[in-house]
Amino acid sequence: MSTGRLSVLYTRRAELGVDALLLSHLPDIRWACGFSGTNGVVLVGDETAHFVTDGRYSDQARQEVEGAEVHVTTDGLLSYLESEDLLAPYGQIGVQADDVTVSRYQALRDQFPNVTWTPLTGVLTRLRASKETAEVDRIRRAQRITDAVFEEIVELLSAGVTEREVAAEVTYRHLQKGADAMAFPPIVASGPHAAQPHARPTDRALQDGDLVVLDMGCFRDGYASDMTRTVAIGEPGEEARTAFEVVRHAQTRALDTACAGITGEGLDAKARDVIEDAGLGSLFSHSLGHGIGLEVHEWPRVSHKTSEELPEGVCVTIEPGVYNPEAGYGVRIEDIVVLRSDGADNLTATSKALHIV
Amino acid sequence: MSTGRLSVLYTRRAELGVDALLLSHLPDIRWACGFSGTNGVVLVGDETAHFVTDGRYSDQARQEVEGAEVHVTTDGLLSYLESEDLLAPYGQIGVQADDVTVSRYQALRDQFPNVTWTPLTGVLTRLRASKETAEVDRIRRAQRITDAVFEEIVELLSAGVTEREVAAEVTYRHLQKGADAMAFPPIVASGPHAAQPHARPTDRALQDGDLVVLDMGCFRDGYASDMTRTVAIGEPGEEARTAFEVVRHAQTRALDTACAGITGEGLDAKARDVIEDAGLGSLFSHSLGHGIGLEVHEWPRVSHKTSEELPEGVCVTIEPGVYNPEAGYGVRIEDIVVLRSDGADNLTATSKALHIV
Repeated sequence: MSTGRLSVLYTRRAELGVDALLLSHLPDIRWACGFSGTNGVVLVGDETAHFVTDGRYSDQARQEVEGAEVHVTTDGLLSYLESEDLLAPYGQIGVQADDVTVSRYQALRDQFPNVTWTPLTGVLTRLRASKETAEVDRIRRAQRITDAVFEEIVELLSAGVTEREVAAEVTYRHLQKGADAMAFPPIVASGPHAAQPHARPTDRALQDGDLVVLDMGCFRDGYASDMTRTVAIGEPGEEARTAFEVVRHAQTRALDTACAGITGEGLDAKARDVIEDAGLGSLFSHSLGHGIGLEVHEWPRVSHKTSEELPEGVCVTIEPGVYNPEAGYGVRIEDIVVLRSDGADNLTATSKALHIV
Repeated sequence: MSTGRLSVLYTRRAELGVDALLLSHLPDIRWACGFSGTNGVVLVGDETAHFVTDGRYSDQARQEVEGAEVHVTTDGLLSYLESEDLLAPYGQIGVQADDVTVSRYQALRDQFPNVTWTPLTGVLTRLRASKETAEVDRIRRAQRITDAVFEEIVELLSAGVTEREVAAEVTYRHLQKGADAMAFPPIVASGPHAAQPHARPTDRALQDGDLVVLDMGCFRDGYASDMTRTVAIGEPGEEARTAFEVVRHAQTRALDTACAGITGEGLDAKARDVIEDAGLGSLFSHSLGHGIGLEVHEWPRVSHKTSEELPEGVCVTIEPGVYNPEAGYGVRIEDIVVLRSDGADNLTATSKALHIV
């Protein structure tokens, strides 16, 4: 964990024009000071930062938190800050408008009327987007777990096994290999179910001729992995095989041209053009990818709606797909890359050839 | 799923004094109309209700939603409602202040200035608390999965096995037995780790003489299970054994006296008095329990801060504990009960005798 992050936040506070910042979004708190528990706030002033949590996290906070003074209370976290005169120096405090509910905001205003509570959006969004080397290494390590799980899972796939059974194995093997938790419930979508991009595992048994979309990821040391592969149970037929090759080609094109400085829409278009040229454009019904790090989905989206340039060091997924409900098949292939000025480093090791089992 | 829930909501809307209600909290939406996906809103008027989601959930919404007209859009959900003139009849629309962020609320006000958006708290809290028979059955079914998992897990516990390994087995076996997902990451806290009520599984190996706290639950058909048992690896010693018996006695006292109409603080006191009388009161550092249903933690808390009466049909956990960091042990025992006017039905089947393995 970089110890310089709190000093970056002192500058950020000044840029935002408030006397102090109250961080409440837990992934932001983890980024700012290292705390990985589920209850805490950070008050960032001009040269000091205070972290407050409850008694459950007393030891953990003292071990983890860097750059902020640690406080533990049995009272409300904000009540504690007030009772210790830690709010008093600040007339105007920024709160995270994307995190704080209307109820919570109203309670702050009622309970601490001497403070002007100012809602701010995107306080840490861009700061978190560009990953340090240690962060990229953590994402790669999480992705290595997922690579290793996939290698085992392919061996288990055969006609007769159900989607639910496969999903249980995906979860189990991630945990066995050191994942702290799954990043999202795995998708195991076979045959016609694969035509839904976000299908949930069912009791459907895999059948000969199915394409099976496997989308999986875990958290390890706070950072997420995310990978999708499409596997065929026997020969999938001409149409599905062609769609697979189009998606693979689209992904390769995006991976080969991705670099820091390209816009989200520019990168999305690299893959989408390939799929459109093959006449399958209407079947690629979602955006190309998303930022990933301490959250599975974080800024930026890699989408036709993102006109901003993707910064150096950002980690994004590249995951084109084709979903054909009428023909009853679906394909998606997904890697994570880190963007550099001269290209993209792929953090995923698993082969992208069509696995036929 | 009761088909009468939307009509209950028409009445609730009138009570709250708004022209319409916009439901955005997903468990509330599931309760109100049956939708189990991750994106949707319900607009409840005086005699009509509209459900809107995106294209990913087109089929699922048509299968699941009862009592509301289903709409699917590629646009924003609220933009869709406006473009279809579905907002137009309403001057004042209530939003869920516990769910909507400040950013989202501001966007509503900016984007739809002709509506007065009124933040409301606890819109469905009490309606959801009293469970119908079909809901109690679902919670019992989820708890049966956890009962069955526990029976197998006890067989795996022995000196040398790590907390992480046990936690992986807990998750795997829930999924194998039909759980849709875990309700929370399982707690497997051994020896001194058991003295932290919310410990996370580590690479610590179970040792002879440990007490091990196992706290686990899953979702099945939308409803949650939640159970804790404390197991001894060999003889735990006099002090830990006494603490176990105190906690067990406290839980029995609470189970025997629980019924609809008792207050949260009254029920909490039943167990707490037993632990205090044994001189261990300061080591019972959390409240006795919490409501459970479509969420693992929902209203009401069973706590000394809850002066309200617990309603007929509410499902709550009863989970006293004693945590002794100095002596390096912890104990917790947790069941789910449904409260009736004449007592409490326990939805948990697993024995509460001290398991010594």
